[in-house]
Amino acid sequence: MDPLGVVLSRVEPADESAMAAARQRQRMLTKPAGALGALEPLSVRLAGMTARARPRFDRSVVVVAAASHGVAEEEAVSAYPPSVTAQMVANFVAGGAAINVLARQAGAGLLLVDAGVAPDPGPHPRIRSERLAAGTRSFLREPAMPREHAERIVAAGAALAIELARQGPLLLAVGEMGIGNTTAAAALTAAMTGCPAAEATGRGTMIDDEQLARKRAVVAEALRRHAPSARDPIGALACVGGYEIGFLAGCCLGAAATRSPLVLDGFITGVAALLAVALAPATVDYLVASHRSAESGHAVVLRSLGLTPLLDLGLRLGEGSGAALALPIVAVAARTLDEMATFGDAGVDGCCSPPAGDPARPR
Amino acid sequence: MDPLGVVLSRVEPADESAMAAARQRQRMLTKPAGALGALEPLSVRLAGMTARARPRFDRSVVVVAAASHGVAEEEAVSAYPPSVTAQMVANFVAGGAAINVLARQAGAGLLLVDAGVAPDPGPHPRIRSERLAAGTRSFLREPAMPREHAERIVAAGAALAIELARQGPLLLAVGEMGIGNTTAAAALTAAMTGCPAAEATGRGTMIDDEQLARKRAVVAEALRRHAPSARDPIGALACVGGYEIGFLAGCCLGAAATRSPLVLDGFITGVAALLAVALAPATVDYLVASHRSAESGHAVVLRSLGLTPLLDLGLRLGEGSGAALALPIVAVAARTLDEMATFGDAGVDGCCSPPAGDPARPR
Repeated sequence: MDPLGVVLSRVEPADESAMAAARQRQRMLTKPAGALGALEPLSVRLAGMTARARPRFDRSVVVVAAASHGVAEEEAVSAYPPSVTAQMVANFVAGGAAINVLARQAGAGLLLVDAGVAPDPGPHPRIRSERLAAGTRSFLREPAMPREHAERIVAAGAALAIELARQGPLLLAVGEMGIGNTTAAAALTAAMTGCPAAEATGRGTMIDDEQLARKRAVVAEALRRHAPSARDPIGALACVGGYEIGFLAGCCLGAAATRSPLVLDGFITGVAALLAVALAPATVDYLVASHRSAESGHAVVLRSLGLTPLLDLGLRLGEGSGAALALPIVAVAARTLDEMATFGDAGVDGCCSPPAGDPARPR
Repeated sequence: MDPLGVVLSRVEPADESAMAAARQRQRMLTKPAGALGALEPLSVRLAGMTARARPRFDRSVVVVAAASHGVAEEEAVSAYPPSVTAQMVANFVAGGAAINVLARQAGAGLLLVDAGVAPDPGPHPRIRSERLAAGTRSFLREPAMPREHAERIVAAGAALAIELARQGPLLLAVGEMGIGNTTAAAALTAAMTGCPAAEATGRGTMIDDEQLARKRAVVAEALRRHAPSARDPIGALACVGGYEIGFLAGCCLGAAATRSPLVLDGFITGVAALLAVALAPATVDYLVASHRSAESGHAVVLRSLGLTPLLDLGLRLGEGSGAALALPIVAVAARTLDEMATFGDAGVDGCCSPPAGDPARPR
């Protein structure tokens, strides 16, 4: 079997017996049942992912994959010049970007991946090179990448997640950088969900009305030209995708194959998840939606994945910013399940049965 | 001047010039303007609170105040017996409650305050005793506490916040424990905002319909009997409040008087904030709403304070749980403002002006 096929064959659904044990423990912890809100079902999901009734994580890592986009070079779909992709990678290396600060606050490692940045940042000890090309070609004119590249970049993402998971129980988070990538993500969203191009296409870095109309026309034209199909996710990635999107789809698959929870960021990483779930449906059991992005296509993606995000802070940055903000919440959901005392342990009285009422008298 | 009067006289509005400088720096950071969503105005508010364009915090502390409530002892308004208040204080000391885990995850200190727990937990190195009584009396029958106690417990909370702030720049968070305290908080909410008793009164620890009807009748009867007024917050606290609520109102005032941000938890701490803001209106400038509680009266409180919460996770636990979850978000809002590189520092190209469009051709 090809390397990607091996990964896909290893993705199994969440473990039901660990989830049942976690649900039972939740009911015994010293708090009213349900009082920790969304943290409680999240803790049960984490049990299902890890197949442990009391999941524990040694560390967390934010993988940020960056790549350039021909559509940004040639079609003017972003408010920023394409040069910003490589400049922001340098900013990540120097520690000055938002994701650096957010990962530091979360106590998470930051792993930078060059999935095809133009110009080539060259070898650097803080960058993992997975580049197959200097970014995509403009998918208005030709396929974004060769099909073989699409397969290889997804496999590379899976290999990284598997490598990280081998080092111990891991909370993985993902982010991305790529000027133009909301255009590719919009085309993939329309291809994978069947939603109209206009619904999938938002303002990205806050382009104006005229640019938005052009961006929507680019997406619609690309869909007409390539006719990407949800039945062939690798083909859709090759036609209208991006290298960082493919790499992150692979991370989702590799996390699922190793029973590691993966915290998504916003629109772009959500589209990567759509591809992964199309390739191996049980992957969705391992995904946590960190936040609801202000980018319009993200609502379509979340609906399609059936995930409810933890945060709604109006973020629209990418880089893994929302994922890094949510990491401590995901970590603590597991820790409350594992570390809290039960009513029995702590000698705390449980919920008393309702006392007999006397409705005639306001007591 | 009395001790509380001195504190009130020191509460000044947020610093406008620091806020202006923070807004200007936000525009220069390496991200699209506004892309960090709610973190950006929060960072500006933190600048205003601390009167520093780049606020920095040495540490964070969650103050959890606990007290017993006569209304719980005598009127059966909770799903849990009153004994649980002291038992949960013991659980906090032993490290087994949700707030212990959440504070550990946030890297925050946890400071437990006995504001009047019955039975008396006695001296303990991990409990700060501020008790004036073994909890309140049932306010259906008599005032909850003497007016002199109401003044003293607020002053004691202010003194603690001032003492903590003297040790260096601080993010303060607050929480509470007290079986029956959503009943007291509902009565105070109605008194301070004028909203109907039924709107202020929710299910607390998930009482059933019959208990809810009784709880609403208790609140309505207490309001009729004592007629607490928003013009006399100390009087309202004395009539229908609780010792931990008064103590936390004081924490809000002490934080504001020392220019320290204070992160509120849910309904009970929000009611404490209502009292503090009634005593010194500029206090609201120093308050951050962490989350939207599932407890119904909290919406009334947030509306009255004019605060938008950061999180909406369906929490209804108290203890400071939502505040502890939000602490890292508040901290990182300040850190992004302080630690991120500017476009100039990082050599990243800024937002380009919209390219000349050619509407005839989808580029």
